[in-house]
Amino acid sequence: MIVILKHGVTDEKRDQLIRWFESQGLGVDISKGEFQTILGLIGDVLSLDTDMIESLDIVQAIRRVTEPFKRCNRKFQPEDSIISAGDTLIGGGNFGIFAGPSSLESEEQVISIAKSLKASGANVLIGGAVNPRVTSYIIQEQNLREIGYLVSAKRATGMPVAKEILSVEDVPRYEDIDILLVGERNMTNYPLLAELGSMQKPVILKRSVSATLEELLMAAEYVMAGGNKNIILCERGIRTFSDYTKATLDIAAIPLLKELSHLPVIADASRSTGLGRLTGPVSKAICAAGADGLIIDVHNDPPHSAFNGNQAVTVESFASIAADISRIHEVITK
Amino acid sequence: MIVILKHGVTDEKRDQLIRWFESQGLGVDISKGEFQTILGLIGDVLSLDTDMIESLDIVQAIRRVTEPFKRCNRKFQPEDSIISAGDTLIGGGNFGIFAGPSSLESEEQVISIAKSLKASGANVLIGGAVNPRVTSYIIQEQNLREIGYLVSAKRATGMPVAKEILSVEDVPRYEDIDILLVGERNMTNYPLLAELGSMQKPVILKRSVSATLEELLMAAEYVMAGGNKNIILCERGIRTFSDYTKATLDIAAIPLLKELSHLPVIADASRSTGLGRLTGPVSKAICAAGADGLIIDVHNDPPHSAFNGNQAVTVESFASIAADISRIHEVITK
Amino acid sequence: MIVILKHGVTDEKRDQLIRWFESQGLGVDISKGEFQTILGLIGDVLSLDTDMIESLDIVQAIRRVTEPFKRCNRKFQPEDSIISAGDTLIGGGNFGIFAGPSSLESEEQVISIAKSLKASGANVLIGGAVNPRVTSYIIQEQNLREIGYLVSAKRATGMPVAKEILSVEDVPRYEDIDILLVGERNMTNYPLLAELGSMQKPVILKRSVSATLEELLMAAEYVMAGGNKNIILCERGIRTFSDYTKATLDIAAIPLLKELSHLPVIADASRSTGLGRLTGPVSKAICAAGADGLIIDVHNDPPHSAFNGNQAVTVESFASIAADISRIHEVITK
Amino acid sequence: MIVILKHGVTDEKRDQLIRWFESQGLGVDISKGEFQTILGLIGDVLSLDTDMIESLDIVQAIRRVTEPFKRCNRKFQPEDSIISAGDTLIGGGNFGIFAGPSSLESEEQVISIAKSLKASGANVLIGGAVNPRVTSYIIQEQNLREIGYLVSAKRATGMPVAKEILSVEDVPRYEDIDILLVGERNMTNYPLLAELGSMQKPVILKRSVSATLEELLMAAEYVMAGGNKNIILCERGIRTFSDYTKATLDIAAIPLLKELSHLPVIADASRSTGLGRLTGPVSKAICAAGADGLIIDVHNDPPHSAFNGNQAVTVESFASIAADISRIHEVITK
Repeated sequence: MIVILKHGVTDEKRDQLIRWFESQGLGVDISKGEFQTILGLIGDVLSLDTDMIESLDIVQAIRRVTEPFKRCNRKFQPEDSIISAGDTLIGGGNFGIFAGPSSLESEEQVISIAKSLKASGANVLIGGAVNPRVTSYIIQEQNLREIGYLVSAKRATGMPVAKEILSVEDVPRYEDIDILLVGERNMTNYPLLAELGSMQKPVILKRSVSATLEELLMAAEYVMAGGNKNIILCERGIRTFSDYTKATLDIAAIPLLKELSHLPVIADASRSTGLGRLTGPVSKAICAAGADGLIIDVHNDPPHSAFNGNQAVTVESFASIAADISRIHEVITK
Repeated sequence: MIVILKHGVTDEKRDQLIRWFESQGLGVDISKGEFQTILGLIGDVLSLDTDMIESLDIVQAIRRVTEPFKRCNRKFQPEDSIISAGDTLIGGGNFGIFAGPSSLESEEQVISIAKSLKASGANVLIGGAVNPRVTSYIIQEQNLREIGYLVSAKRATGMPVAKEILSVEDVPRYEDIDILLVGERNMTNYPLLAELGSMQKPVILKRSVSATLEELLMAAEYVMAGGNKNIILCERGIRTFSDYTKATLDIAAIPLLKELSHLPVIADASRSTGLGRLTGPVSKAICAAGADGLIIDVHNDPPHSAFNGNQAVTVESFASIAADISRIHEVITK
Repeated sequence: MIVILKHGVTDEKRDQLIRWFESQGLGVDISKGEFQTILGLIGDVLSLDTDMIESLDIVQAIRRVTEPFKRCNRKFQPEDSIISAGDTLIGGGNFGIFAGPSSLESEEQVISIAKSLKASGANVLIGGAVNPRVTSYIIQEQNLREIGYLVSAKRATGMPVAKEILSVEDVPRYEDIDILLVGERNMTNYPLLAELGSMQKPVILKRSVSATLEELLMAAEYVMAGGNKNIILCERGIRTFSDYTKATLDIAAIPLLKELSHLPVIADASRSTGLGRLTGPVSKAICAAGADGLIIDVHNDPPHSAFNGNQAVTVESFASIAADISRIHEVITK
Repeated sequence: MIVILKHGVTDEKRDQLIRWFESQGLGVDISKGEFQTILGLIGDVLSLDTDMIESLDIVQAIRRVTEPFKRCNRKFQPEDSIISAGDTLIGGGNFGIFAGPSSLESEEQVISIAKSLKASGANVLIGGAVNPRVTSYIIQEQNLREIGYLVSAKRATGMPVAKEILSVEDVPRYEDIDILLVGERNMTNYPLLAELGSMQKPVILKRSVSATLEELLMAAEYVMAGGNKNIILCERGIRTFSDYTKATLDIAAIPLLKELSHLPVIADASRSTGLGRLTGPVSKAICAAGADGLIIDVHNDPPHSAFNGNQAVTVESFASIAADISRIHEVITK
C-alpha cells in the first residue's frame, strides 16, 4: 500500500502518522519526491480501513499495490482448485456442463430432460428460476416441489444437481442439492455468504451485473473466510448501454479471473443474453475463452415453457452445442 | 400493447393467436402493413407474459404503448402523494431533509448531532450503515444498539427517525423506527418488499445502481400491490464508466420520476459520490432539480468516524448547506 | 412505424395528422384502444423525421416496428456478403485473419513480420496506429513512411494490406492500401464516411466504444448509401464500468450483427482488452462465436516496440493462436 | 510515478532499469516490501511512455501519484481562469448563459430570438447543429448561411456568438464567430484540437459521451500545449444503461472539474437529456452545482423547428428559467 501525503505536510504530522502505522505492525518506507512525500507500507495491509486513511487531513490519496483478496488469489496458490460434486469434477482441466430447465414443471419432465442432457454430455443438472411476481409462501412451496423433481432426476441419472438458493432460511431445505448457486442479486447478501462459508458444499457465485472483477473476488473471499474453499466463480453478463441483449457477457473476464484466482471459472450462456438463439455461439465462445464450464438453459418445449421460454434451447440444440464444445475444449487443451 | 407478427404468417395461425388473446379478455385490432401485420391489444395487458408471447414462432416483436406500472403511475393519480412521519410531511411541496451519521457511536453522540441537525433545518434523523465485514450476529447486536440510539434521539428532539432494514426477520425490531429504508442492494429483494407492502409504515425505496427508472417503479409497484402506498423513491447514483466518484448521480431522474409517478422523489447526496467535499454542490443541485427531499450523511468528526468518514460532512457544513437549500427551494417553488 | 396519440385528442386534430402522413405517401391504419388511439404507418417510413413527430402536441410516443437500416439489413438480402481484397475473401464462410504490428518501425521489420504471419495463416497484413501526441505534420510524414513499409511487404508476400484512415484528405495517399479501416473514433465522421461510400474499396467500420449495434449499422448504411457495398463490420469493445481491461468486448454482438445484417463481421482481439496476454483466449472466443475474421496486433519484440507493446503478441504466439483458430473454425463450420 | 517490480526480480535487472530512469533525468527512490520492490520516480514523468514501462518483463504495475495534466491543473494555478468574448466574461464568478436555436432558419428568426434571449439574461448567442444525413457540400453551404445569420444577430444585439466547428478546413470561415465549440464527437480529433491550440479564440471543449474526466482534461491539455489558454470545459452527459434520456448528465463532474482545474466549467442542459421539458430542472441543477455557465437550446416554435424540436424550449420558458437561475446563482455565491 502506498500513502501519498499532501504537499506541505509538516514533518511532525507525517511522523505521527508513521508512528500510527508502525503501531499497527506495519513497516514504513519514506520516499520524498519533488511534489509529494510517499509512504510505502510493508506487511499485512488488508485489514487497514482505507476509507479512513484517505479521509485524513494530511493524506492526498492511497494506492494499493497488491490485490485486496488473499484466499482466492492465485499468487498464494498457483495450482488450479478442483471442485467435486458427485462424480463430477470442475476445474484443473475438468470441464463442467451445467444444463437444465429454468422452468421445472413435473417430475416426469425433469427426469426426461436430465436423461437427454446426460446422454449429450452434461455433467451437472441445474434447474429452477425465481419468479418474483408471486408471494413468498408460493415461492417456498414451489421451491420444495422443484427440489423434489431435481432429487428424483438425480436418482434416475446419477448426475449431481444444482439450484439457486435465496436465503439463509432455505439452507436446510437444500440438503439434497449438491451445488448451491448464489444469483447475481445476492452476490453481496452477506448473511447468506457467511452461512455458505460455514459449510463445505460447492457454491457457484455469480457476478452481479454491476460488480467489478475485484468485487466478485472480494465476495468469494468473504465466503472462503468462513472455511469453505469450494467456490466456482460465474460470469453472467454486466449491465451496459448496449441494449439488444439483457446484459453484456464480459468474455475477457474469463481469462482474467483465471489469472487472478485459482478458483474454477464458468459463465452463464443463457442469462447473459436472454436470447435462446444466441446460446450456441455464446457457449462456444465461453469454452474457447478457457472457461472451466458453463450454464445452459435447456427446455423440452421452449415456446410453451412456463417462463423464460425466450431464453432456453431445445434438448436437440443442446446436444449439438455440447458436441461442438467438446471438440473446442479439445483444441484449446491439447 | 402492440404485437408484430412475422412476415409470411398464415391467416390460420394469426387467427388462432387472436382467439387466444380474446380468451384472455382482450380486444384485438388488426393492422396490415407492407411487410408486417400488427395486432393492437386493448384492455388490461399488464398481466400478460410478454416473454412467452415474444418467443412464439409467429411473433417478431412486441412493443408496449403504456408503462407497465399502474399504482405509482401519475396517469392514474395526477396529484402528488404526500407521506407523513411524525410531524414531518414529504411531497406535494413539503421538502424532507434526512440527515444523520452513518456511524452511530453512542447515545450521547447521536442526541447531540440530532439536536444540531434539527436546529439547522433537518426534519428526519437518519442513521446507520451496513458494515458487511462482520458476522451476522455482530451486525444484529450493533443494529439493536443503533436503533436504541436513534429512538433516544427521537425522544430528545421529536424528530422522526429512519434506518435501513436488511431482512424480513428485522421488521419487529424496527417497531420504533418511523421510516424504513430499503437500500440499493435490496431493491429487488422480493420477500422484503412483500413484507413492507403489508404494513403502512413509510418506506424509502432506493434505486439499485444498475436499475433503470422503470425497474425502480416496478419495485415500488410490487410494494404497493400489498397495500402500502407510503413509498418515497430515492435516486442514489448509478454505476457507469465514470470513475472519480463511487456512482454517477442521475440528476435528470428526479424530474423524470416526478413526471412518471405521483410518489415523492428524493436523492442521496452523500452515497452517490462517496466524497463529503462534493455534498454541498450535489445537495443544491438535487434541490434545484425539483426533488422532494434529500439524504445527507453528517458526522460530528468525520475524519475520526468509525467508517464512511470520507463521505460525511460536519454539522457546521450541514447548517450552511441546509440554509442554501432552503433558499433554492424557495426560488423554484415561489 | 406506430404513432401513439395522446389521450383526449380531438378527431379533427387526429384527421389532420392522418392527412399529413397520407400526403407523404404513407398508408395509415387506425386502431382505437381504451386509453389510446394508435396509427400504424404503412410504406417507406425511413425518411420521416421521428423527432419532429414525437414533439407534436397530440403525439404521446412513436415506436418503430422495423429496423431503421435497409441496405445492410439481412431481411432485404438473406445471403452473406463476401468481400474480396487481393486473393483474400472475407465472409460467407471465408475467415479473414488481419494481423500485423501497431508499431511499424522499418521496411525490414514489416516485411519480416509479414512473412511470418503469412506462413502462420494470416491473410491480410494490417498495420499502424495513431499516436495523437505529435503534430499533424509529423503524423502525416510518419503515415506516408508506414504506407511505404506496408506496400513493400505486400510486394514481398502478396498479402493485401489494411491501414486506418483518419481524414478525407488522406484518401489519395492510401491508393495502394487495399482495405481502409475506419477507427472507433471516426464511426460518425460523416465527411469521411461519405468519401469512402463513393469508392469501391473494402472498408472496415469499427464500432465506437459508445455505439449501440443500431448506431453501427446506421453508419454502415450511410457509407452504403454512397454506393460502396464492401463494408466489414468490426466489434472492438465498448466502454463499461468494468475496469480491468481498456474496453469490454461485446461477444454476443458478433452473432447479433450477423443476424441483423448480411455484411461480414469481425472483431479486434487486441484493442478490446489492451492486454497482449489475453489475445489468445479472446481470439479463440471471437472465432467460436461465429465471426468472419479478427484483428490481432503482432510485433517482433513487444516489450521494445515504439508503443502499444503491452497489447501486441509475438509472432510465435500468433502462430499458435492461428493454429487453434483454424481448428475451432473447422469445428463450428463442419 | 510508482513502478512496482515483480516478485523475484534480480538486483541486476532492477539496477539496469533504475539507470535507464536516471538517464531520462529522473530521480529514483527504492522501497523494498515483503512481496514487492517499489521504485518512486521523482521529476517530470509526464512524457514517459507508461504503456511501454508496464510491458517490461520485470514490471508488475505502475501507479501514477499525480494527475497526468499540468497546464489546466489547479495545483499549478490556484485562481480561476476567466475567459472573455466581446463584453461577456465567463469563470471566476461570472456566469455565462449560452442560448440559441439548434435550428437556424432565417436572419429574421435568429435576430428576433437573439433579442429576446438578451432581454432575458443570455450573454452568448449559440446556434446551429449538425445534420449528418446530408452531403458535405450541403453542410458547408448551410454552415455559411448559418454563420451569416449569427453574425447579423451579433451586430443587432452586441452579443458574442458561438458555433460548433467540425474541421480544420472550416477555421477561416469562422473568423467572425467569437467562441468555437468542439462537439463531443470531436473531443479527440487531434488535428482540430491542434489548430485551435494555435489560436487565441475561446474554445468550448465538450466531454465525449464515453470520456472520463481525466480524458477530457487531457484533451484540454492538448489544446493548451499549443498556446491557447482560453478553454471552457463542458459536461454534456455520458452514455449509460439509463435509457429514458439520450445521455446521463454527470452533475458531480461540475464540482470535480472545478476542483481539478482552474478552467471555467459549463454544462449543456438541452443535449444531455434531449427532452425540452426537462431543461428547466436540469438547468437549475447545473447552476446550483456551481457551474460557470450553461447551454440551452431555445427556439421560437419548437414543434415546427426543422429539427431537434423535441429538445428546445420556447423563448418564454427560457425567460422563466433564466430568472430562476439568476436567483440560484445569487444564493450559492452570496
